Amino acid sequence: MMNKPINFENKLSRIDEHWSPKVIAEMNDYQFKLVKIKGDFVFHNHPDTDETFIVIEGNLRIDFRDDHVELGPGEMFVVPKGVEHKPYAQEEVKMMLIEPRNVKNTGVAQASELTAENDVWI
Amino acid sequence: MMNKPINFENKLSRIDEHWSPKVIAEMNDYQFKLVKIKGDFVFHNHPDTDETFIVIEGNLRIDFRDDHVELGPGEMFVVPKGVEHKPYAQEEVKMMLIEPRNVKNTGVAQASELTAENDVWI
Repeated sequence: MMNKPINFENKLSRIDEHWSPKVIAEMNDYQFKLVKIKGDFVFHNHPDTDETFIVIEGNLRIDFRDDHVELGPGEMFVVPKGVEHKPYAQEEVKMMLIEPRNVKNTGVAQASELTAENDVWI
Repeated sequence: MMNKPINFENKLSRIDEHWSPKVIAEMNDYQFKLVKIKGDFVFHNHPDTDETFIVIEGNLRIDFRDDHVELGPGEMFVVPKGVEHKPYAQEEVKMMLIEPRNVKNTGVAQASELTAENDVWI
């Protein structure tokens, strides 16, 4: 066991691209990922799992097909499995995602340049 | 689906006792809990699951039998399953716990006045 704390700011400083979640920790078969985003993602859903968003810096909007939610720093939201959603950030947002190992960031949407490599640790 | 963000400060303001985690969200069969602590807990372990600590305010020390880790705001640590640990806070710490539903806060240690009621939502 590595008895060192995992520092979000330190880990975030190693991320230099948008929409590319990096793993910082695991709990059982779940992963904690940090990601920087800016602009519009694609609508997608994860049919087999809920997905947790925790905002560290900036203002995140998650669009649903007929509604949306807005999150600031120190706020979280759990998108239920199967619910179509699209993250959006007018200015850069730094946030944490929590979800099971091997969840693809674009879910069941067609793979695109936004589809990130999975299980990349920083 | 409730399209409202979960605000940590707002939820923490409803907690008025130490060592009594309150559930604020669920992701699949996992729960997010906020808790305020001060002083010494008891050594215990959770034989079936890892346990995640994320510090929001204050300085947390987690003692192990032969080592320890110190966490400040914006830092996290995952205690592996089966590892004996004892949280300690010289001054009050506000933090989030993430673990499967129905995990007892005192783990396999003998139940005591520190054993909190489970699954209490705020």
